[in-house]
Amino acid sequence: MTDKTAPERFLKAGERLDDLCHRGRRLIQRPDAYCFAMDAVLLAHFPRWRPRDQVLDLGTGTGAIPLLMAEEVARVEAVELDGTLADMAARSVALNGLADRVIVRQGDYRAMERLFPGGRFDIVVANPPYYPLGQGKISPQAARSQARHEVTATLADVVRAARYALRPRGRLAMVHIPERLDEIFRAFGANGLAPRRACLVQPRADRPPNLVLVEAVAGSAAGHLKWVPTLNIYRPDGAYTPELLAIYGPESAASAPEKKG
Amino acid sequence: MTDKTAPERFLKAGERLDDLCHRGRRLIQRPDAYCFAMDAVLLAHFPRWRPRDQVLDLGTGTGAIPLLMAEEVARVEAVELDGTLADMAARSVALNGLADRVIVRQGDYRAMERLFPGGRFDIVVANPPYYPLGQGKISPQAARSQARHEVTATLADVVRAARYALRPRGRLAMVHIPERLDEIFRAFGANGLAPRRACLVQPRADRPPNLVLVEAVAGSAAGHLKWVPTLNIYRPDGAYTPELLAIYGPESAASAPEKKG
Repeated sequence: MTDKTAPERFLKAGERLDDLCHRGRRLIQRPDAYCFAMDAVLLAHFPRWRPRDQVLDLGTGTGAIPLLMAEEVARVEAVELDGTLADMAARSVALNGLADRVIVRQGDYRAMERLFPGGRFDIVVANPPYYPLGQGKISPQAARSQARHEVTATLADVVRAARYALRPRGRLAMVHIPERLDEIFRAFGANGLAPRRACLVQPRADRPPNLVLVEAVAGSAAGHLKWVPTLNIYRPDGAYTPELLAIYGPESAASAPEKKG
Repeated sequence: MTDKTAPERFLKAGERLDDLCHRGRRLIQRPDAYCFAMDAVLLAHFPRWRPRDQVLDLGTGTGAIPLLMAEEVARVEAVELDGTLADMAARSVALNGLADRVIVRQGDYRAMERLFPGGRFDIVVANPPYYPLGQGKISPQAARSQARHEVTATLADVVRAARYALRPRGRLAMVHIPERLDEIFRAFGANGLAPRRACLVQPRADRPPNLVLVEAVAGSAAGHLKWVPTLNIYRPDGAYTPELLAIYGPESAASAPEKKG
């Protein structure tokens, strides 16, 4: 049950309620910490969900992805290393009355055996850190730097954790930067995953892509990668493209900055 | 020297002269055999050529790629397994007066040691067969089926041959189908090549890509793949897009079917 009468009672000092622009849901965030961006919105809409799916979100941050797709599937478990973020995410779940479908757990997905038995999930979603250490400026704010840089988990860690969690033929859906697509495919190959669906995301039709959405199947063969048309976010005049609005709806599209970090 | 007076004297029975729409060059082809398509035109324009480059074209077919970029580089060697195609390509080189820059050789790039010493080339270009055997209809016409299906050379063969031919930091530029990009990256990784530049090609902005252009560097590290904006060939009204015309010129763009096979 959504407690719409006093959502502020879920807030701690320094926090605010952000509009997820999806079914009236609201997300607890801190302006001085990691906040969700369009990456999460795009990822939440990329997989083809089925009502019976058991979903795991690796590194959920403030819990935006579970709140954006909770009604599509049977159940979402969400893991977050940072205790402050995990606590905010759990309160956002309660605030939106989704405690029966979404479970947030503070934990380290580099040690999945301690968190879950293997092969339990139909779908794993992940919006992992994009940049290897040593590339770009590291934020002094821990939760922010962990979301952007591989301070804690690496690409190999997240793919390995996903493979552990997935049932055979289960799917990993991930958003990442296209610069690392070769590493992503190699990490898939090293963990018995094969990419089956992908989409480049460009800020504009004449700008290089800055995100890639990719879905991989556990225990599948390489060479059957279906691309969807490249998604452009903005028209030349700065408005959202019809493709973006058609896929994500005018409500959700307007909410988030384009890319984390 | 171009012999413009009697190009027909270069033709054998069943052959015709096709306009390459590039510097007035003409290409000997047979309507009943493999003919070049837009794949080759796109590939010839993709690498950043330097005037001193020594280039190798693996599986040149009728020799379209060497004739489209001969003036950009110092020298092009072109290998073709099919004797009939190699003979047509060699006569096209002569017909266009490019014998001082382009050398066509009949040979099998699965046995590169017999053709060239290793590490000799700055750039290798390849428009290899796209489909593994067992996928789609195999043409009964040998040269056509070899261009489309991995009847003779496989993806692994072409990448291995390229790696053998390239000097350290030399580049392989290849056109292929995006469905196999994961296999392509794995073949690169297995042969010490790393993709550094890529471009998806879509028939239209709202259609999935059907080609990918990719450039890989020998002896380079993974994770630095620079994508250029997705190239759309046609506008919704069926005309060529300004991007296509801007890159390839109105002359060359109008010449070829979109995709071989």
